[in-house]
Order: sequence, then C-alpha cells, then structure tokens
Amino acid sequence: MAFHLLQHDRQGAQLMAQALQQAVASVRHCSRCHTFTEDEVCEVCRNPQRDASKLCVVETPADQAAVERTAAYRGLYFVLMGKLSPLDGIGPKDIGLAKLFERAADGQVQEVILATNFTAEGEATAHVIGEALKARGLRVTRLARGVPAGSELEYVDLGTIAHALVDRR
Amino acid sequence: MAFHLLQHDRQGAQLMAQALQQAVASVRHCSRCHTFTEDEVCEVCRNPQRDASKLCVVETPADQAAVERTAAYRGLYFVLMGKLSPLDGIGPKDIGLAKLFERAADGQVQEVILATNFTAEGEATAHVIGEALKARGLRVTRLARGVPAGSELEYVDLGTIAHALVDRR
Repeated sequence: MAFHLLQHDRQGAQLMAQALQQAVASVRHCSRCHTFTEDEVCEVCRNPQRDASKLCVVETPADQAAVERTAAYRGLYFVLMGKLSPLDGIGPKDIGLAKLFERAADGQVQEVILATNFTAEGEATAHVIGEALKARGLRVTRLARGVPAGSELEYVDLGTIAHALVDRR
Repeated sequence: MAFHLLQHDRQGAQLMAQALQQAVASVRHCSRCHTFTEDEVCEVCRNPQRDASKLCVVETPADQAAVERTAAYRGLYFVLMGKLSPLDGIGPKDIGLAKLFERAADGQVQEVILATNFTAEGEATAHVIGEALKARGLRVTRLARGVPAGSELEYVDLGTIAHALVDRR
C-alpha cells in the first residue's frame, strides 16, 4: 500500500496522513461505554431513545457495529476493548471490568447481555463477567448459541449441533 | 467418473455395479422411522437403550447422521425423506406427515424435537409439523438458532445475530 501510494497517488498519501493524524488527535474512548468516539460521551450513550435498562457487553467496536446493524437491539453497550487472555497477560484490569461492574450497578441497568465472541477466550470472558454480575444480584443473559439462520444440519459442525440440541426451546 | 472407470478400472466398475444392484435390491425404508436400512426396522429403532420418549424429526438420513455424530442425543428419529416444498409440488402426503402424527401419538413419545434445516423450506416444514403436534397436545421443541460455536460476532450474518439476541438465555 505504501509503495502504491508513493508511486501512483502522492496526494492521496498526503490526505491519508492528515486523516490519520486527525483521528489520532481527536478519537478517544467514550467515558461511559469505552467505544471509539470524538466526544466525551458517544452518540449511542447520549441517545435518550435507547433503552437504558439493557447493557450489551461486546469485545470490540467492530462487534458493537455488528450488533447495531441488526437493528434488533435498542439498549446500551459496554465495549471491553479486548478480552480476558491470561496467555497474553491480559487480565480483568486491562479490559476495565471494575468499570463495567460499577456501570452495571448504576441502578438503571436491569439486564446485562453478554455478547462476547463464541471463541475460547470470549466464552471465558463471558463466564467471569457473568459470575461476578450474578453474585451482585444482576440478571445476566448470553446470546443464543445454535445453528445459524439459513444453514443445513448436514454441514454444521458437531459442537454447534450438540449445543443447539441442549439449548432447544 | 464413468470415463475414468472404463479406461483405468474396469474391475472396479464391475464391483460398483454389483454393489449398486445389491443396494437397490436390499436397502429399504425402516417401517418406524423411514430412514434407510436393510431390515424391516432399523438399528436405532430396534435399540432398547434409546430413549423412546424423545422423537427427533429430520429431513434426510444425512441429517440424522449429523445429529448421531454429536453423541449428544439418545432418543429416536423420524426421517421425513424430504421437506414441504409447494413450489416443487411436495405436500404433507409426500413426506409422510400422517405417519409422523400417528407415531408421535403412540403414547411413548413425550417430546418431539424439530431438527429440520434452518432454510426457508425447513423452517416452514417445522412450523407446519409443530402447529399440528401442539394441537394434538404434544410437547414440541426446535433446535436452538444462534451463533455457531467458535465464531466471532463480527463475521456472523445479521439475521443470526438478531435471532441470537431474541433467543438469549
């Protein structure tokens, strides 16, 4: 990319450098949900139309964007900006769990929806957060695990079918 | 495949022809669950270790094999050998629904688990069967829909995330 810009598009490189500098200077973390924003509090957290009784915990702003695109969720978010990963030395402090617990106990939040990824680290993170919040008397739910929409059983992995069987409704 | 056999493996072709003839002559449908078998009643239906209070409805023997491979299900099956598909002229009679309703009402079955595919036709088939069985007072469940094990939200389709949100537990 660098070679392409230097050979074919020096003006574009200049613009990109400026945009990056501006982003670095102005983009920071929302003081309520930790997602990326240019303001003190992000647009979602500021929106009075959002349902403040629901708090959806995701790993990254990209995951938050994925949930937002479904238009099926009208609550608020807490973005961990990472996940528990002991092998990489990432513990509860690095993903702001104390901040999350404080936020969840603000009296407005009725339900915390754990939407971390369904990977080993995401599941471990969900487990740790879930146990801690349940111990504080909060209602905790987890995104459903199961067979994705549109798929045929024959081509779905065994672990997913087994989960879908256990979680049948 | 035909050209390869004729040019390189005429003996293999002979064997395959015999195997196919034998299969055509001896493989039929289980009289209880409709899956492929060489006996009057298939091995799963004959197995007294299986839990006769659960009946899992699948579209094809391949789907049945996928559920079996999980080793998470110990009940019995009913194989539709197809799915409702009005556009292709496939109605309730073609997939033996009357036989299924009779089987589900045998007094032993406590729960019918709908494990048709999560495609449009599979969902429609599950809906029709589910409504009919519920009207007969039976307990009907559906495999969980949701995010597959091991996956990251960012790469999961919107419909699946929306379902996983609605079905959170």
